[in-house]
Amino acid sequence: MSASLDGRFVRNAWYVAAWSRELGRSLMSRRILGEPLVMFRKQDGTPVAFVDRCPHKLAPLSRGELIGDLIQCGYHGMQYDSTGTCVRVPGQPPIPPAARLKSFALAEKYNAVWLWAGDPAAADANRIVDIPEYDRPGWGLVDGQYLHFATSYLNLTDNLVDPAHTSYVHRRTIGNSGGEDVPVKVEHSEGHIVAYRWVTNAEPVPVMKTYGSFKGNIDRWQYYHLYLPSNSYVDFGAVDTGGELTEKAKEGGFRSFTYNFLTPETAASTHYFWLHLRNYGVGIAQVDADIARVYTQTFEEDRDLLAAIQQQQEATGVREYVKLSIDHAPARARLMIQRMIEAEG
Amino acid sequence: MSASLDGRFVRNAWYVAAWSRELGRSLMSRRILGEPLVMFRKQDGTPVAFVDRCPHKLAPLSRGELIGDLIQCGYHGMQYDSTGTCVRVPGQPPIPPAARLKSFALAEKYNAVWLWAGDPAAADANRIVDIPEYDRPGWGLVDGQYLHFATSYLNLTDNLVDPAHTSYVHRRTIGNSGGEDVPVKVEHSEGHIVAYRWVTNAEPVPVMKTYGSFKGNIDRWQYYHLYLPSNSYVDFGAVDTGGELTEKAKEGGFRSFTYNFLTPETAASTHYFWLHLRNYGVGIAQVDADIARVYTQTFEEDRDLLAAIQQQQEATGVREYVKLSIDHAPARARLMIQRMIEAEG
Amino acid sequence: MSASLDGRFVRNAWYVAAWSRELGRSLMSRRILGEPLVMFRKQDGTPVAFVDRCPHKLAPLSRGELIGDLIQCGYHGMQYDSTGTCVRVPGQPPIPPAARLKSFALAEKYNAVWLWAGDPAAADANRIVDIPEYDRPGWGLVDGQYLHFATSYLNLTDNLVDPAHTSYVHRRTIGNSGGEDVPVKVEHSEGHIVAYRWVTNAEPVPVMKTYGSFKGNIDRWQYYHLYLPSNSYVDFGAVDTGGELTEKAKEGGFRSFTYNFLTPETAASTHYFWLHLRNYGVGIAQVDADIARVYTQTFEEDRDLLAAIQQQQEATGVREYVKLSIDHAPARARLMIQRMIEAEG
Repeated sequence: MSASLDGRFVRNAWYVAAWSRELGRSLMSRRILGEPLVMFRKQDGTPVAFVDRCPHKLAPLSRGELIGDLIQCGYHGMQYDSTGTCVRVPGQPPIPPAARLKSFALAEKYNAVWLWAGDPAAADANRIVDIPEYDRPGWGLVDGQYLHFATSYLNLTDNLVDPAHTSYVHRRTIGNSGGEDVPVKVEHSEGHIVAYRWVTNAEPVPVMKTYGSFKGNIDRWQYYHLYLPSNSYVDFGAVDTGGELTEKAKEGGFRSFTYNFLTPETAASTHYFWLHLRNYGVGIAQVDADIARVYTQTFEEDRDLLAAIQQQQEATGVREYVKLSIDHAPARARLMIQRMIEAEG
Repeated sequence: MSASLDGRFVRNAWYVAAWSRELGRSLMSRRILGEPLVMFRKQDGTPVAFVDRCPHKLAPLSRGELIGDLIQCGYHGMQYDSTGTCVRVPGQPPIPPAARLKSFALAEKYNAVWLWAGDPAAADANRIVDIPEYDRPGWGLVDGQYLHFATSYLNLTDNLVDPAHTSYVHRRTIGNSGGEDVPVKVEHSEGHIVAYRWVTNAEPVPVMKTYGSFKGNIDRWQYYHLYLPSNSYVDFGAVDTGGELTEKAKEGGFRSFTYNFLTPETAASTHYFWLHLRNYGVGIAQVDADIARVYTQTFEEDRDLLAAIQQQQEATGVREYVKLSIDHAPARARLMIQRMIEAEG
Repeated sequence: MSASLDGRFVRNAWYVAAWSRELGRSLMSRRILGEPLVMFRKQDGTPVAFVDRCPHKLAPLSRGELIGDLIQCGYHGMQYDSTGTCVRVPGQPPIPPAARLKSFALAEKYNAVWLWAGDPAAADANRIVDIPEYDRPGWGLVDGQYLHFATSYLNLTDNLVDPAHTSYVHRRTIGNSGGEDVPVKVEHSEGHIVAYRWVTNAEPVPVMKTYGSFKGNIDRWQYYHLYLPSNSYVDFGAVDTGGELTEKAKEGGFRSFTYNFLTPETAASTHYFWLHLRNYGVGIAQVDADIARVYTQTFEEDRDLLAAIQQQQEATGVREYVKLSIDHAPARARLMIQRMIEAEG
């Protein structure tokens, strides 16, 4: 299955192309879904994205310049408007009809610029992932975070429906041995998977020891939600042990939501944009800084391990040899992604 | 067409292998037309070039040493004379007939060592490009210049019959917007193309502002001559605006000739040797230094852009999508090179 | 013949995997015969080697940790005992039978950890190369030496049955021009080749000038023994010129044995472990240090040349063009290795 997905991507989906602060009046180049893109803002602030390649002789447009809302190629001065239509060929009045840039639909939400990788006509900004706690009083926000992963986005989606790995990979930050033997449950519906577990009567993990104020042992939940193909949020929290294990109980607990937006760069590398919402330490700059640092460390642990796994997959041509019960959700995610790609033809 | 030329080269042609000052009594290694060569001078100063590979076990001969006019392999001491004939195999009197180095015909002219890449018997030094102004009184010379380009020589020959790109790529040095809309004319004959234009009643370009003494606007010419496959000279100059646009007028003008000698290193990289002749600032060392600096900057602008284009060509397998009228000369040059290669079989 | 050996290795053989001092209670990763291995010592000191890849999702086990004698994967906590049997899958009582690590038979001898690359059941430590002078009074030892070679082990075995190359590659250390024209003799038997020569009435080579006390010219021997596939020792020494050229004479002479243990890392790179025994300067630390330095320099000369040759072989697809009489032993060694590989199927 892995092989059949290599280098193929779901196109009818919203991917984060950049944080809003990254785009301005200079030309920015970034590879997304295997294709180099050039991005900038028009004079009115609207973001624009094109394939970063002049159709004349393939010069990167990001080496050209902005003239008002026109992008001018740095090689022979061809100019394109913000729809990608060529409006000037120096020295040649008739403009060849093929002189067009492929453009993408963009939308801006949650301080991020989202790119619809498929037909722009089908782009519907209402389908961008919803973040209810964003800008809600009582919630502290750390956003604008980015990491580059030298691994397929599929190895990352595996992780993001796999609470079990935190006991080992992240025991210095968000995991510990308390949950080692607690099985993971999985539910899925159209375009969504959640893998979850409650670890009860357990010692708080490092991040909870630092910021929580528990009486002793805790009941801790991990709910790993994945919106296919690659937007994830992790609902993570704890209450003092002994109560009911319900959604209601979670509301009063120590709680955070980590949103992870994966954008394939190539078949073997991924842009990892993330933001974090929490209901503790709100408004305290030091806690903001700590969260950015601790989660960066956490994701760097994933990054280093998954880069090594990517290399092994490439060397062996295999993705896994032995299936465990914790692989149910990752396998389901890959299957659902494969079907989405196949449905797109 | 591009694909069919990839990694193929015209062999019956003179290429600059090195500047004369680069060759001496030590062994120099340089890859030319895809093949590693070892070069040196005999005791009498004559330059010699061989494939840099001992036919015994493929050791690079450039890691061996010169013993008089013999080159000795550093692995087992086999010695070759300056025709490439093996004259000694230590410990073994009979010399295998296959123990021969492939050698090349060389000629020295204009402070450069020229290599005939084809059958040495067909080498005719009279076919080396002629530089009438070289050593002529009233002309200032900057020679011995070199740049390495990570791009196919064909992307460079494109540029060297394309005056139009200077308006954009080189507007800090030898171009400006004055000529943007002036069409390019093309003429060609056996083994030669010239693409040219006159830009009239225009502002002087930066280099002319610095070194010229014009009354106001100028008539500026660009004549881009290419001798196939890859020796070029650019006849570039200006006169005060309003006169006739003739060869006669050029003789009295502010004028320079830039000679560009392209030697393919591999299918995707090129040695760029260049020299410059001018009829202004003659004998002034500061102008020599300025010319070396300004043109180096100019060619580095080409180098960076053409390396990016090479990467795009390799990623997409395409050379260009849209043909413009300015592509007439580059397309003609590629066609003529292709025919030369095909004629060689 | 070369092509048919590329990337294939004799498996039923002992290879040095590490010096004894390299292995301890931390996890060490090293690629051997193309495969990444993880190595460590059990609590009782016994060395263990596995393929460095968890069969679940291919995570390198060397990124996990040792828990007693169990190795625990750092991704999901699977634990393997020192036979490679999985003994724990967190959260899942039944252990899938396929969850096994491929392990290797190891043996420790001469301060080295030897790995049997084939079926562990066939491993017989008595077949490890014998070093009679090791720990023998009157012999000085330099061991624990290592170099990495970016070349096929076959290019190294070529060298190690080729005394002739020392006259050129190593004339600053263990060779000089005295032996240039002395032919090499070859003998071979099951699993063994020796190439040798006596260079008589010759000037001492640099290392003998430094450490020997000869009256004048010498009779010098080079006996290059190769135990297939890739363990070698060089019997090297000299006596004052004029005596008999016998094994008996060698015993009273200035003499050293250099043992070279080649372990293929990949098809194109090799681990080079070596040790040196000598009957001069015994017990003098400065001589130990000098030997380590001089031989390291000597092998670095080989390393640089053979890396260049490897590149030429890869670029041309050829190993050699012209066969000389000195190639008899290397060709024989390759043929014998090929037959060993073919016999293994």
